[in-house]
Amino acid sequence: MEIKKLFIPGPTYVHPDVLAKMATPPIGHRTAEASALQRGISEKLQQLMYTTNKIVLSTSSGTGLMEGAIRSLTQKKAIVFSVGAFGKRWWELARLNGIEADLHEEEPGHPTMPETVEHYLKTGQYDVVTVTHNETSTGIQNPIESIAEVVSKYPDVIWLVDTVSSLGGVKVEVDRLGIDVCISSSQKALALPPGLALASISPKAEERLKAIGPRGYYLDLGTLVKYVDEKDYQYSCTPSIAHMFALDFQLDRILKEGLENRFIRHVEMAEYMINWASHFYRVFPQPGFESMTVTCIENTRKTDIGALNKSLRERGMLISNGYGSLKDKTFRIGHMGDLTLEDMEALTEAMEEILGLN
Amino acid sequence: MEIKKLFIPGPTYVHPDVLAKMATPPIGHRTAEASALQRGISEKLQQLMYTTNKIVLSTSSGTGLMEGAIRSLTQKKAIVFSVGAFGKRWWELARLNGIEADLHEEEPGHPTMPETVEHYLKTGQYDVVTVTHNETSTGIQNPIESIAEVVSKYPDVIWLVDTVSSLGGVKVEVDRLGIDVCISSSQKALALPPGLALASISPKAEERLKAIGPRGYYLDLGTLVKYVDEKDYQYSCTPSIAHMFALDFQLDRILKEGLENRFIRHVEMAEYMINWASHFYRVFPQPGFESMTVTCIENTRKTDIGALNKSLRERGMLISNGYGSLKDKTFRIGHMGDLTLEDMEALTEAMEEILGLN
Repeated sequence: MEIKKLFIPGPTYVHPDVLAKMATPPIGHRTAEASALQRGISEKLQQLMYTTNKIVLSTSSGTGLMEGAIRSLTQKKAIVFSVGAFGKRWWELARLNGIEADLHEEEPGHPTMPETVEHYLKTGQYDVVTVTHNETSTGIQNPIESIAEVVSKYPDVIWLVDTVSSLGGVKVEVDRLGIDVCISSSQKALALPPGLALASISPKAEERLKAIGPRGYYLDLGTLVKYVDEKDYQYSCTPSIAHMFALDFQLDRILKEGLENRFIRHVEMAEYMINWASHFYRVFPQPGFESMTVTCIENTRKTDIGALNKSLRERGMLISNGYGSLKDKTFRIGHMGDLTLEDMEALTEAMEEILGLN
Repeated sequence: MEIKKLFIPGPTYVHPDVLAKMATPPIGHRTAEASALQRGISEKLQQLMYTTNKIVLSTSSGTGLMEGAIRSLTQKKAIVFSVGAFGKRWWELARLNGIEADLHEEEPGHPTMPETVEHYLKTGQYDVVTVTHNETSTGIQNPIESIAEVVSKYPDVIWLVDTVSSLGGVKVEVDRLGIDVCISSSQKALALPPGLALASISPKAEERLKAIGPRGYYLDLGTLVKYVDEKDYQYSCTPSIAHMFALDFQLDRILKEGLENRFIRHVEMAEYMINWASHFYRVFPQPGFESMTVTCIENTRKTDIGALNKSLRERGMLISNGYGSLKDKTFRIGHMGDLTLEDMEALTEAMEEILGLN
């Protein structure tokens, strides 16, 4: 049976009207239409991200832009705060590019706390700090507001935030929080097919990029910014125009729904899933740090997740097993993008029936 | 007016049935279906590329994989043979990644000749050589058969070939020619929307990748190969599944047309355009080295290309001005992918009418 609703933490369910835009005939990427399309997207993303910073788009996954950001912006050393696999990835990306970086990992289920960030930054060793806003491998949403207060005390530090699985579902006020590079990608709470990443770049980050100069080309942040500036939002390489048509259309839908309404819808879905998980299982993250887009559930009933998914599949649904070493010990349910409370109710009803829960 | 036929050298015209596949609902990228899809594509690409080498897919432009290839594979020094902007790009990519590389540039309109390649390789300085099969900026198709004879004499040299604008339109026999890394992308003669790149990797290149170890992550060739090997064709990062559905479908269409038929169709379109251009203007490349997918025309009539394109646009068509410093001095007409001789006839008829040629 065809999967009608993906409840995995990305790629997520895509609305048919948005999907249809993926089939728009390509336009020349060196035309005025291409500039207008990419400029329009950037302006709408600025609204979504509460920022006046420049926006860049990259035909890659979020990891591609994370790699470009940590490589292009670290002069001294980066400190990476990890609460799971995607947090740790920043550190691996640095290491594989010969960039100096230290890693602070939390116990699984625990968030990055502002005092931990302060502990490292006050050493003065670091000029880049990375934080994961929402970690899909453990279902943690980090306290980005209080971390922002700490980071703001260190004006020489560039702050990179991974909002891959939060942007579009959770409010991320880039300018108020002082995020220098805020990275996201298409296939999570923005509810588009995978294949496109995006970032906002603060003037401070732009200055650093200019001071360091290009490192690499395709993923180099400075090169992306340069083309936006000098080539009127046209990129150095042929981009995925299909994704851009779909993103442009989806941003209109998102703004029409209303940002606050969209965030409230995500809170309602999250609260519903957290309650459900608490009732039948246990929620994996430390209380108060649960993600608003994906619930990571401790598999206290030793449910056979593979078998559960096989039965869900017959009903056109799919959830995720735990990530890496958390496989079978946890499982994960996405509630992001264009999913609704009704979708979550249909999912839990199906799970209760399949598993004989009551 | 909506452009119905793109005659620019990429992105090219995409058949409506192929476009429609871009709107396929996403599937989980860690599912058996994703493996099957990506394995099937790889097997079909092996047929198209006349190779048993492994295939990797990358959600990026062709430049992304070119960067990954020259960075990941050069141990001593690369020699880059350039016949235009995209040839020179290899050298820039090397330089921006701290990779040693020398550049040999031809006069505009002249091809890379085997004796030139020999001249450099016999110095023993180089362990990587890059050649552009088909250069869209100058409309040159390099004599890859005779270059292959030279390169085959140097078993320690890894041969990287850019077939971005030829693969799918011109026969590229990867194994017989001994191409170690053959790179292409979706939006040229494969006639898909832009956003996906692909490469074949020879066992010799695989060995070198293992010896060097990873350099970077997202574009690192060794990492891509490792995931194909160990994760059953699943990639390390969420790929553009939309492009994969469309590519899989388009490869079926290409194989159904028949590879030889497809190549003959491209020769017919090219010969038609070369004749037309010789009659009214002058063909830019040295005779015998004209591209089979894009004709670069010397603007001997000082035609206002911008105005011509404006009129063509009203008829739903678009061609390209010259690239970079060749702008207005040359202009370019793509004849690749799913365009037909009838399309080319319609284009030349429109141009003759607009320009009052007879």
